[in-house]
Amino acid sequence: MHVVSRRRLDGGVLEREFLLGDVPGILWTPVDASETSPVPLVMLGQPGGLGMHRMRPALEGRARSASAHGLAAVAIELPGNGGRPTLPGAESVRAELRRVLSAGERPGPELVDRLILPLVERAVPEWQATLDACFALPELDGRAVYSGGVIAIGVRLAVVEPRILAACLFAGSYIPRATMSEATAVTMPLHVLLQWDDDGNDRDASLALFDAFASAEKTLHANMGGHTGVPAFAGEEVARFFDRHLAQAAD
Amino acid sequence: MHVVSRRRLDGGVLEREFLLGDVPGILWTPVDASETSPVPLVMLGQPGGLGMHRMRPALEGRARSASAHGLAAVAIELPGNGGRPTLPGAESVRAELRRVLSAGERPGPELVDRLILPLVERAVPEWQATLDACFALPELDGRAVYSGGVIAIGVRLAVVEPRILAACLFAGSYIPRATMSEATAVTMPLHVLLQWDDDGNDRDASLALFDAFASAEKTLHANMGGHTGVPAFAGEEVARFFDRHLAQAAD
Repeated sequence: MHVVSRRRLDGGVLEREFLLGDVPGILWTPVDASETSPVPLVMLGQPGGLGMHRMRPALEGRARSASAHGLAAVAIELPGNGGRPTLPGAESVRAELRRVLSAGERPGPELVDRLILPLVERAVPEWQATLDACFALPELDGRAVYSGGVIAIGVRLAVVEPRILAACLFAGSYIPRATMSEATAVTMPLHVLLQWDDDGNDRDASLALFDAFASAEKTLHANMGGHTGVPAFAGEEVARFFDRHLAQAAD
Repeated sequence: MHVVSRRRLDGGVLEREFLLGDVPGILWTPVDASETSPVPLVMLGQPGGLGMHRMRPALEGRARSASAHGLAAVAIELPGNGGRPTLPGAESVRAELRRVLSAGERPGPELVDRLILPLVERAVPEWQATLDACFALPELDGRAVYSGGVIAIGVRLAVVEPRILAACLFAGSYIPRATMSEATAVTMPLHVLLQWDDDGNDRDASLALFDAFASAEKTLHANMGGHTGVPAFAGEEVARFFDRHLAQAAD
C-alpha cells in the first residue's frame, strides 16, 4: 500500500489516499485507533459506472459514520471505473445494454452475465489484496464487514473471504446467474437493503436472491424512495447490524 | 372504563386491568405520566385464538418496553377470544379450517374472509371505544400508534382511525380480500414485519399487501426465526420507528 496523500478530517478521522499496485483507494481510520486499540474495517462497496471521484462525498459520509461507530473504512476504485483501463469487451456490452434499455426492456441473463461477471472476477481479488494491505497496519484488528455496492461482488466476497464477518448487501443491481447459485453458499449474517419502488430494479430477482442465501440470520429491509433514496434511518440500522455482529465476534 | 384492579410493576409501570362494557383490557402507563407530562399510547394487537391470558407475559414485555420509551400501552381481549362469547358461525368456520390445514392445503379466499372479517368488524369499533376511554385519562396525550396482531384489524384501523399516527403490522396472518383493497387507502407511515421462513404464512400475499399500501413511508423488515421467532433486534427497530414518528408529530 503506497500512501499518496493524507489529511485529517473534522470529527477525528484520518484519511489516506493510496495506490495498491495500480488500484487507487482511500482508507479512513479514527485518529485514536492504534496498535493498542485497533479497530475493525468496513469495506465500502460502490455502484459500477460512476467512479470513486463522483462517489467521494457519499463515501466520505459513510466513512465518517463508520468512524462514529469506532470503525475504519476503505474504498477502492472498481475495475474499469474512474481512470482505470476499460475492461475487454466492456464498450460493446454497454452499447448492447443501452439498446435494450432504450427499447424499454430488461437485459436478459446472458447480457447481465457479460456485464457484471468480468467486474466480479477482477474486483474480488483486488478487495482481498486490499484487506491484506490494510490488515498489515497496526491500527486495524483483522476483522472486516462488507457494505453495499455491486451485489454480485458482495455475494462472491461473502463466499470466498473468511475475514468478512457480516455483510450488508444492496439489492439494486443486476444479478448474474452465478451470483444466484453462489448465494446458497453464503452463511454469514446478512442485512439486505432493497428499494421497493426502484423501477429499474428487478424486485422479484432481488427477493429470490434473498431467499437463496443460506444464512441463519438474514434480514431484508425494503424501503421507499427510489434507487438512490435509501432513508437515513435505514443507514442507521445498517450501522447497528454491524455493531451487533462485531460485538458478538469480540465476545 | 371500569378499573377492576391496579398494581405497580418493577420499572415504574402502573398496570390497570379494566372492563369497557364487556371487553376486558389492560392499560400500562409509566408512573410518571401525568396531566402535565402526558404520554402517547401504543395499541398492542394480539394474534387471534390464544386469548389475552396466554398472551399476558408477551404483552407485559411489550408494555414494559413501551414504558422504557416513555409510552403507555393498552391491550384488549379480541372478540370470541379468552372468556368472551364465541362469534356466530365461528365453530363451523374453524372446523373447516382444521380440515383444510390437515389436508395440507391453504384456506381459500372465501374461508379466509369468513374466518377473519367477523373479527375485524367487531374488534375495530372496540379498539376505537378503547381509545375514547384511554384518551379521557389525563396521563395520555391523545396520540396513538398501533402494533402487531391480526393484520386485517391493523389495516382497517389504519384506514378509519385518525388518532393513530403510525402502525407496525405483522404480516403473519390470513389476509381477507377486503384487507387487500383497503390497503390502497392506507397512507400513514408503516413498518411491516414478515417472518421469511414462516411456513404457515403466505409470503407472496404478504408481499402483495405490502406493495398495495399507499403510504409514502413504508418499510418491510423480513427476518428468519419462524412464525413466533421475531428477533429481539427487530423489536428494537419497531420501537425506534414509533419514537421517530411520535417525535416528528410533536414538532
